[in-house]
Amino acid sequence: MKVKSPEIKVGMRISDLIDSLSLTAFNARRLANAAKICVEMVKNDAFVFLTIAGAMIPAGMRNIIKGMVENRFIDAIVLTGANFVHELVEALGFGHEISSPYINDLELADSSLNRIYDVLVDNSAFEGIEKFLEDIIFQTHGKIGSYEFLWIVGSKIENSFLRSAYNLKVPIFCPTLHDSIAGLHLMIYSKDLTIDFTKDIKFLTDLCFEAKKSGIIILGGGVPKNFTLQAMLLAEGFDYAVQITTDSPHFGGLSGATLEEAKSWCKLKKGAKAVTVYCDSTIALPLIYLYMLEKIRSQ
Amino acid sequence: MKVKSPEIKVGMRISDLIDSLSLTAFNARRLANAAKICVEMVKNDAFVFLTIAGAMIPAGMRNIIKGMVENRFIDAIVLTGANFVHELVEALGFGHEISSPYINDLELADSSLNRIYDVLVDNSAFEGIEKFLEDIIFQTHGKIGSYEFLWIVGSKIENSFLRSAYNLKVPIFCPTLHDSIAGLHLMIYSKDLTIDFTKDIKFLTDLCFEAKKSGIIILGGGVPKNFTLQAMLLAEGFDYAVQITTDSPHFGGLSGATLEEAKSWCKLKKGAKAVTVYCDSTIALPLIYLYMLEKIRSQ
Amino acid sequence: MKVKSPEIKVGMRISDLIDSLSLTAFNARRLANAAKICVEMVKNDAFVFLTIAGAMIPAGMRNIIKGMVENRFIDAIVLTGANFVHELVEALGFGHEISSPYINDLELADSSLNRIYDVLVDNSAFEGIEKFLEDIIFQTHGKIGSYEFLWIVGSKIENSFLRSAYNLKVPIFCPTLHDSIAGLHLMIYSKDLTIDFTKDIKFLTDLCFEAKKSGIIILGGGVPKNFTLQAMLLAEGFDYAVQITTDSPHFGGLSGATLEEAKSWCKLKKGAKAVTVYCDSTIALPLIYLYMLEKIRSQ
Amino acid sequence: MKVKSPEIKVGMRISDLIDSLSLTAFNARRLANAAKICVEMVKNDAFVFLTIAGAMIPAGMRNIIKGMVENRFIDAIVLTGANFVHELVEALGFGHEISSPYINDLELADSSLNRIYDVLVDNSAFEGIEKFLEDIIFQTHGKIGSYEFLWIVGSKIENSFLRSAYNLKVPIFCPTLHDSIAGLHLMIYSKDLTIDFTKDIKFLTDLCFEAKKSGIIILGGGVPKNFTLQAMLLAEGFDYAVQITTDSPHFGGLSGATLEEAKSWCKLKKGAKAVTVYCDSTIALPLIYLYMLEKIRSQ
Repeated sequence: MKVKSPEIKVGMRISDLIDSLSLTAFNARRLANAAKICVEMVKNDAFVFLTIAGAMIPAGMRNIIKGMVENRFIDAIVLTGANFVHELVEALGFGHEISSPYINDLELADSSLNRIYDVLVDNSAFEGIEKFLEDIIFQTHGKIGSYEFLWIVGSKIENSFLRSAYNLKVPIFCPTLHDSIAGLHLMIYSKDLTIDFTKDIKFLTDLCFEAKKSGIIILGGGVPKNFTLQAMLLAEGFDYAVQITTDSPHFGGLSGATLEEAKSWCKLKKGAKAVTVYCDSTIALPLIYLYMLEKIRSQ
Repeated sequence: MKVKSPEIKVGMRISDLIDSLSLTAFNARRLANAAKICVEMVKNDAFVFLTIAGAMIPAGMRNIIKGMVENRFIDAIVLTGANFVHELVEALGFGHEISSPYINDLELADSSLNRIYDVLVDNSAFEGIEKFLEDIIFQTHGKIGSYEFLWIVGSKIENSFLRSAYNLKVPIFCPTLHDSIAGLHLMIYSKDLTIDFTKDIKFLTDLCFEAKKSGIIILGGGVPKNFTLQAMLLAEGFDYAVQITTDSPHFGGLSGATLEEAKSWCKLKKGAKAVTVYCDSTIALPLIYLYMLEKIRSQ
Repeated sequence: MKVKSPEIKVGMRISDLIDSLSLTAFNARRLANAAKICVEMVKNDAFVFLTIAGAMIPAGMRNIIKGMVENRFIDAIVLTGANFVHELVEALGFGHEISSPYINDLELADSSLNRIYDVLVDNSAFEGIEKFLEDIIFQTHGKIGSYEFLWIVGSKIENSFLRSAYNLKVPIFCPTLHDSIAGLHLMIYSKDLTIDFTKDIKFLTDLCFEAKKSGIIILGGGVPKNFTLQAMLLAEGFDYAVQITTDSPHFGGLSGATLEEAKSWCKLKKGAKAVTVYCDSTIALPLIYLYMLEKIRSQ
Repeated sequence: MKVKSPEIKVGMRISDLIDSLSLTAFNARRLANAAKICVEMVKNDAFVFLTIAGAMIPAGMRNIIKGMVENRFIDAIVLTGANFVHELVEALGFGHEISSPYINDLELADSSLNRIYDVLVDNSAFEGIEKFLEDIIFQTHGKIGSYEFLWIVGSKIENSFLRSAYNLKVPIFCPTLHDSIAGLHLMIYSKDLTIDFTKDIKFLTDLCFEAKKSGIIILGGGVPKNFTLQAMLLAEGFDYAVQITTDSPHFGGLSGATLEEAKSWCKLKKGAKAVTVYCDSTIALPLIYLYMLEKIRSQ
């Protein structure tokens, strides 16, 4: 098939724009193919995992994750501890401040402001989270999975994908919960609460095992990617996989590893539909989400 | 100002989506700011250069460049020899074939197919170009700038941004014309034709000098970026600059150099509005172009 | 000071070569400065953490880590679950096979071979690890930190940095132990063993708190980087920091975040000596290690 | 073959260190293989091209290039206009100043200092070059190739690889001579001098054609890479190729294109020995050069 340059017109739907990119090349074509696979996995009733690494919440992606949960595009979430904590920063009303990467970090330190590239968060937000989590941690007992802890938290807040996930019984796994400020709070305030990640592995593996068809949308690699893929080692492999990353394969790390490599591990089925988009998720995710909305919800 | 997660809805215009990204972070915010600067430079009647490196034509971006010329969004183009040649591949009807990066290159060599990442071009296309250029080169005389040569070529084809640029008297500079298969043809077929790039420098410098306001949209670095920026060394510096690149500053090359660095050279004015988007141009360019159409042409 | 091009001569010591790079630019200069800071932190008796992400063990870096432990260059290690597991693959004699990134992954899957970029590991290695870990997990009781578990494992093997660390009482933290095949084994074989990462946080924080001077050598970002840096939130910040990464700051993730950004969080002291080298650790680490050997051990 | 972790010892030769990396993985292994291929191409009397892009001269790599010329490791050079100009900055004694990427560019502009990532060059250096080139340009006549111009310049300076190349009759091609400040000087001062790059193509093609065996060492992509590779379109393809780059294949540009892709174009022979090292050239080049010295000159 020939490369065909898109005809771009005022007012065209984003889904039409993206469809037209499927006859281009490089990451535009990868983006178009990724969007199509995302739609296909939902339409074919696959059980879909969304894995989230990188500072997606500070970067303003929370409403999209919420929308994906509420539209039932995704059936489970696996995220980093930092994204959990920063979602609390937003849901509890502290928010993140728009800033610049070219700012004096020593002055920020003096002002109790912490920088995440071009976004700032005030220390007071972490104090607020500490107050909020203190009671929850103190009053929760026993060995539980991170997904249980996140539902408890989700049940106590509004306006958050954590709440939507709780409401709709969408599991949220946080295998690096301790690798965040919430980890410090767990250390300080837990009475006899222990996060037991083997419970996460068990539940995750069960979900993989029970799914007739399964898909995974990977934002940015990290533990969420590996933790979810490895759950498939005991099952049959994903049927669909989309990966959005800025890491390269040739440095050998798992975050940049190709989905082809994942097939050698049987984490993906041999015939799985899979595509990687080499792009900042903050650009690719809103486009793919709107594409899914237009293709699934509006037709 | 606070980070605000976008509210994404079916059927929203791409310009509304992009506007909403200006309150996010990382490259989504950069993209939104870049789109706004592109609109502003056109609305404020800046003389706008578009520089093109990377395999943009094989990747299907030619209609967008054509649209930018015909909508008078850009006033001059500076491109690589390869993009000129591959535009001829398209305009003369040979086209590029959609393929995959995971294909056997030795078998391609046996089949006279040449690979550009996930796109193929047949040797017969280059034979076709050779026939087409042979006469033009043979019949053109004297020392001329590359921009004169490209207008001559543009006058002899249809359905190409080269033709649109010729029709609308938009100069197209090709400072690496010889770094392409056309260079081989120039060597073989020119009688007394010489491409004299000092004429390019002179004309380019004049354009920079005469412009009351000036802007530059940089796709991918390379010679087109540097050649255009250095023309400003003799003038006052650009007022607006947008750069879309996948190169990083920390490797020290000019392609990845920040626009801040360009201010130390006075290639940009001190108060210039400038933003870099770290993204594959095949994704960012269609979005920015549609944004410009919606903001400039439809209002 | 002027840039000075190195005078390179046959038989020069690697430390002389690297010293000469400190008057160059870009990542050569960064590498030279990193090597110097590594020497300085050891000579000044800082408590030094080495954090390890990326597939460093499959890539053959284990002897270097062992050497760093045995030479007392480092006082604590924080690594990923995968590096722990692959160290067992090596220490138990299974090893990793040299391969290529351009190999058919479906055929590998059929041959029970799993690919890590250009290295392969046979499924039988994981079966061997399972047998080895089964007893250890079954016979270990209570809630323990990952560092306790790794010492137990280290006490039962030879020829491994895990054993050297056990012998020399160098703590090894593995905050993503469950994010590895060992996690599956923990799920299957633990009787009443729970890995309680709040114990890791507590011990790590104590180490940070007690250190008069402290340093960190970061290989590749990920959880090991963040987990160690965040331990400093309760202490005073690192005095020295060296980061070797292939991630870029401009995508906003923590793995690529600059050490300047870490100062805004007070994870580094304001006056900390810190440098990032943008380079594959497999290249930079052997050079820095040999530099340290020559500067610290041979003088 | 199994991955074997290097045994690193004080005082080991850099060539032994690099040899030991050939049984590791990722870019350490790539580096070792590249060094071996470089030695092999010299030992087998291949005609070797060195192509230079990126700011290698500001970064202090000039002595290495000089050493490669004087040791007859390379038989021709293809470089960017910027590297030619900055070699004059050094050879004429102006030099480059060591600086930082975190410096105020507006203040630099006020101080007539121009930044190249973490290196500065004073405007006075360019004035010095202008004086130096003015006479040469004025007194040179006719249509000449860039290689002729660079030899003329080389004949008039000392302490430069330009002089060494002139002395030893090693051709230096500069296909983007006009894409540099020297281009402005050519525009201003040439009487009837024209740089005719078809002469470069002709000479380069002849060199490719006449070589019984041929090799290429590519630093950083750009026009030098493509211009040299395309010369092989009329000959039989390179026998050896080593590429050191920080660009990735998956963005589709020629700078990041794999050497496998070059085989589809027949720019490399099918059986060519070829390897890409994903690394900053400022790190990889000194290592490879010292390796070559130790393996070729000291044995």
